[in-house]
Amino acid sequence: MRSRDSAVSLMLEAAQKEAIETTWDRLDAQLPQCGFGELGVCCRHCMQGPCRISPFEDGPQRGICGATADTMVARGLVRAIAAGAAAHSGHAKHLAHTLHKWVKGQAPDYNVKNEAKLRAVAARQGISADGLSVRELAAKVVASVFSQFAEGEEPLAWAGATVTTGRVEALAKLGALPVGIDSSIAEMMHRTHLGVDADPVNLLLGGISCAIADYTGCHIGTDLADILFGTPVPVVSEANMGVLKENSVNIAVHGHNPVLSEVIVRIAGEMQDEAKAAGADGIVLVGICCTGNEVLMRHGIPPVTHGVSQELPILTGALDAIVVDYQCVYPSIVEVARCYGTKVITTMSIAKIQGSTHLEFVEEDAAGKAKEIIGVAIEAFKARKGRPVNIPQVKSKVVAGFSVEAIVAALAKLDAADPLKPVIDNIVNGNIQGVVLFAGCNNVKVPQDHNYLVMAEELAKRDVLLLATGCGAGAYARQGLMTPEATEKYAGPGLKIVLTAIGEANGLGGPLPLVLHMGSCVDNTRAVDLTVAIANKLGVDIDKLPVAASAPEFKTEKAVAIGTWAVASGLPVHLGLVPPVLGGPQVTSILTAGIKDLLGGYFIVETDPQKAAEKLFAAIQERRAGLGLGTRQW
Amino acid sequence: MRSRDSAVSLMLEAAQKEAIETTWDRLDAQLPQCGFGELGVCCRHCMQGPCRISPFEDGPQRGICGATADTMVARGLVRAIAAGAAAHSGHAKHLAHTLHKWVKGQAPDYNVKNEAKLRAVAARQGISADGLSVRELAAKVVASVFSQFAEGEEPLAWAGATVTTGRVEALAKLGALPVGIDSSIAEMMHRTHLGVDADPVNLLLGGISCAIADYTGCHIGTDLADILFGTPVPVVSEANMGVLKENSVNIAVHGHNPVLSEVIVRIAGEMQDEAKAAGADGIVLVGICCTGNEVLMRHGIPPVTHGVSQELPILTGALDAIVVDYQCVYPSIVEVARCYGTKVITTMSIAKIQGSTHLEFVEEDAAGKAKEIIGVAIEAFKARKGRPVNIPQVKSKVVAGFSVEAIVAALAKLDAADPLKPVIDNIVNGNIQGVVLFAGCNNVKVPQDHNYLVMAEELAKRDVLLLATGCGAGAYARQGLMTPEATEKYAGPGLKIVLTAIGEANGLGGPLPLVLHMGSCVDNTRAVDLTVAIANKLGVDIDKLPVAASAPEFKTEKAVAIGTWAVASGLPVHLGLVPPVLGGPQVTSILTAGIKDLLGGYFIVETDPQKAAEKLFAAIQERRAGLGLGTRQW
Ligand code: SF4
Ligand code: SF4
Ligand code: FES
Ligand code: FES
Ligand SMILES: [Fe+2]
Ligand SMILES: [Fe+2]
Repeated sequence: MRSRDSAVSLMLEAAQKEAIETTWDRLDAQLPQCGFGELGVCCRHCMQGPCRISPFEDGPQRGICGATADTMVARGLVRAIAAGAAAHSGHAKHLAHTLHKWVKGQAPDYNVKNEAKLRAVAARQGISADGLSVRELAAKVVASVFSQFAEGEEPLAWAGATVTTGRVEALAKLGALPVGIDSSIAEMMHRTHLGVDADPVNLLLGGISCAIADYTGCHIGTDLADILFGTPVPVVSEANMGVLKENSVNIAVHGHNPVLSEVIVRIAGEMQDEAKAAGADGIVLVGICCTGNEVLMRHGIPPVTHGVSQELPILTGALDAIVVDYQCVYPSIVEVARCYGTKVITTMSIAKIQGSTHLEFVEEDAAGKAKEIIGVAIEAFKARKGRPVNIPQVKSKVVAGFSVEAIVAALAKLDAADPLKPVIDNIVNGNIQGVVLFAGCNNVKVPQDHNYLVMAEELAKRDVLLLATGCGAGAYARQGLMTPEATEKYAGPGLKIVLTAIGEANGLGGPLPLVLHMGSCVDNTRAVDLTVAIANKLGVDIDKLPVAASAPEFKTEKAVAIGTWAVASGLPVHLGLVPPVLGGPQVTSILTAGIKDLLGGYFIVETDPQKAAEKLFAAIQERRAGLGLGTRQW
Repeated sequence: MRSRDSAVSLMLEAAQKEAIETTWDRLDAQLPQCGFGELGVCCRHCMQGPCRISPFEDGPQRGICGATADTMVARGLVRAIAAGAAAHSGHAKHLAHTLHKWVKGQAPDYNVKNEAKLRAVAARQGISADGLSVRELAAKVVASVFSQFAEGEEPLAWAGATVTTGRVEALAKLGALPVGIDSSIAEMMHRTHLGVDADPVNLLLGGISCAIADYTGCHIGTDLADILFGTPVPVVSEANMGVLKENSVNIAVHGHNPVLSEVIVRIAGEMQDEAKAAGADGIVLVGICCTGNEVLMRHGIPPVTHGVSQELPILTGALDAIVVDYQCVYPSIVEVARCYGTKVITTMSIAKIQGSTHLEFVEEDAAGKAKEIIGVAIEAFKARKGRPVNIPQVKSKVVAGFSVEAIVAALAKLDAADPLKPVIDNIVNGNIQGVVLFAGCNNVKVPQDHNYLVMAEELAKRDVLLLATGCGAGAYARQGLMTPEATEKYAGPGLKIVLTAIGEANGLGGPLPLVLHMGSCVDNTRAVDLTVAIANKLGVDIDKLPVAASAPEFKTEKAVAIGTWAVASGLPVHLGLVPPVLGGPQVTSILTAGIKDLLGGYFIVETDPQKAAEKLFAAIQERRAGLGLGTRQW
């Protein structure tokens, strides 16, 4: 089985018929993959390599410079964290530049859409708003953001202000509080150079510090997106390829950053008439990956697919353009698009693909650029019109938009004075056993969505509250688990009581969805914010809470960075694939056990989703016991 | 043949007898190395990998995400550049922090030793010194330095102020001028993440930009080291293992940064009595790799060995301590040291080795820490005293210390009003055919020093002026090519006339050495400064000059970064090993040919040193012809 998504399966059949190569075919062609790489014991950090450590005693146990397996594994891991941090913080910096341009009057198509969030963020960061206009306050917030990238003399203020004091202390004790995002990335690249840091423990501590830099970048990304584009509130939409319409101009926005896609959403609304003039019923905008999550959360734009299946909507023959920004965009989409007349439009100077149409996006002329882009899609529609399409009639209802602010607002309907109280009471009384955040990607090595589905069903049944972000949220969206109906079907009795109480207090006439969509992958910090609020309310640190995270189908270096800061924040973190660390026994043992004594969090590597759910439930029960709360057996 | 250095050969015999594993043994154990890695067509940038491109048509031509061979090669290359830039700029930042601490009165063991250089650098960077004390001026320079790391709105001022205007324009046209060192590193890590930049050409342009960031870091490193510790002037010393003394406390300083080693030099001078009290004749300080180059250039401390042979001085049984900072320190030295009682002392929080003695260095108590470190070495001497040693009686005279300032001062003896005139006149009249800078490392895949020696002898014979830095300079130092005698023996008639004229005008009673030692690997910017001065004097850009660079035995990611900026600065750059790019035909063709049209510089990959010398000579002749100067045949 390649995917649990029936639309994907239908398209894969079409691919086979039409001899179109897909991601899964390329996995097959790669098999068997290199065992050294899988174990993390291949090093190419200097031109004496590649050096490999043998899994057998009579083979080489050291690289040419003397690096051990653990050194190689640790170096590889922290470089991945550095790359992840670079991606997230590049995204955040892009938003900061946009807000900065707006402050300077150079980005007329943007605005501070959410002044309340601007004020809240400023207050949190100790920036006085006294007597300042919105623009002046935004200028101060932007300056504070930029200060987080450069090397400063103090630990990153945005990290310090958004986690518990206990976390700050625990990290400080380990020397794992970074003093700059970019500088931390550079430091890790330095330390992993030939002949610098060879101590796997020291490297891992550096990696944790860099992961906190990644966290900071993510948090800035979410904060600034909310300021510029609004904080999400619950929204109803649909997901999967059935949302495409034969006689519409179908445009997918793909990548991660809402800077461009927000403008496309607006301009698409304004250009419906142009689409009609071209003979279409209108413009249908859909999302892929986290750009999709961003516009779903804020505008209800339906996600068409996620992650490993990103080539397949093209095979419907109905997609006129894919507009990409950056991250997780498979260059293969250009090859598939070539067969169907779909325009792949790259827009960022830092992310091009040979064979695509490059229309460089500039914030100074955002609307103009969006018009140009949509114009290309309309032209592609004209060329396509009349050709048969093959749109699988598969789609699910989805309720998304669960920012922390939205969750708190919903809870406030139960207890206006103390909105978190209902959650905490229900954790205490056992209606909610604990909370699990599902994050991360799809990975072609796992049947798409399978691990997400098995784990969510198993945990929900046992009254675990489920949150999701990124392509993980996408899986649940496409698979119908972000609906009240799923709650009725899968939630355990306690969880159902709570979700129903909240839903009804909010006039929904039914429960909240089984899995709450918290946003894109940078938005994992939303889940931290919620956890921190609960921890502070209970007066315990995060590492005591019955909260865990899972990346059951993770793929990217960003996910490695996020997983690491989730562990550093004190959570048990499940990984559904084996990361390339097993070749380093010391590193493996620290990450899965030793680190627990230092930070409370730790990795649980388990490829069987059923067993993974059991292990997370056990971790939650261990923490419930620690807090003196009632426990349950699996 | 493993090495052309007879001391190394002797020690390798000893290693074999005593069954001590060396770098060369580990190379043998690694053979055959992975062909995918060697071609650059293995990708592990996400957890779907490792993905490999087959060299055969029926194997996979794309990674799982659709990345092509060229995408993989380009991504790997620019990550190497980012790592190199991180290393150099980490070094520079460390010096900046030290100077900053001195400014704040927190680093009493440091000082501005070279006020003239401080003023010259400030003036070059447009920093007014009017009415400022040395400390105040240093504060301004430090602030300017820190501003180069963070993302600014303008291209890096330190790069712009130190190259020709023609270079700035050529790079600007390509969008290859970075706006921050750390931010450029982060950007390249972002762009090489799964699904960001897939276009090899775009990636290479980014890599060039990051290489300019590396150049900036290097230049800052050299400037600040000169300010803090003095600009080198010619100095006579000896090189190779014969400098060790049986009945002395032998201490090697190893790594790259003079921040610690400068203090050790001073304190070792003060602690001679303590060594004598322990029964030693005194303390013998020696250098390894570029820390060795730094203290040779400024204090005549003899280099004991370099690069691939760094384990071997331990086998003499006479080395009491190796004090390391960072970069190019093989962790294997700890294993070898274990057998001989040598203390390996790591000193930097970012560079530890399991099994070493870690004495964390802090600039606030530099002298105290140096005392502690030397104390450990004296204790090790006491434990060793009386045990037989095996010091190979091999050493060469070396004349080092050729900073640009020192070269100009020497030339001023010929023409005080216009010091560069003699060089230019002799280039024009053909006594000097051109200039070649040898830079880079030793690499265990090449018989140590062989390529350096063959190329230098061949080029010198043909009147090419030779400069060297880094472990390349180390090779020439150990092999006796940094002596007037070598000039007598190897220089062609024209070159001999010029070097003799300068030598005699400076009262040396003979010629300058055949190869001029310009310093450590960050000091490659000294060679750029000299080239820029000549270019500006001639009124042509660097890409027209008969100047080239060679890294005949390169190894590190730093070398990849340096090689790239040397190409970007307009030079033909020879590489004596095949970098991991051949799997990407587009990348290979750009780097060796296409880039010439854009920047004038290009890579010449040639593993045969004789042929490499011929190719560099041909490149020089091509440029001489371009300038209308007389040319010669090989
Ligand atoms: S850094 Fe060490 S292990 Fe890695 S390629 Fe170089 S010699 Fe081999
Ligand atoms: S980034 Fe692409 S080529 Fe590299 S490991 Fe991932 S899927 Fe394979
Ligand atoms: S040998 Fe397989 S990843 Fe390097
Ligand atoms: S397969 Fe050899 S380096 Fe990856
Ligand atoms: Fe994402
Ligand atoms: Fe060096």
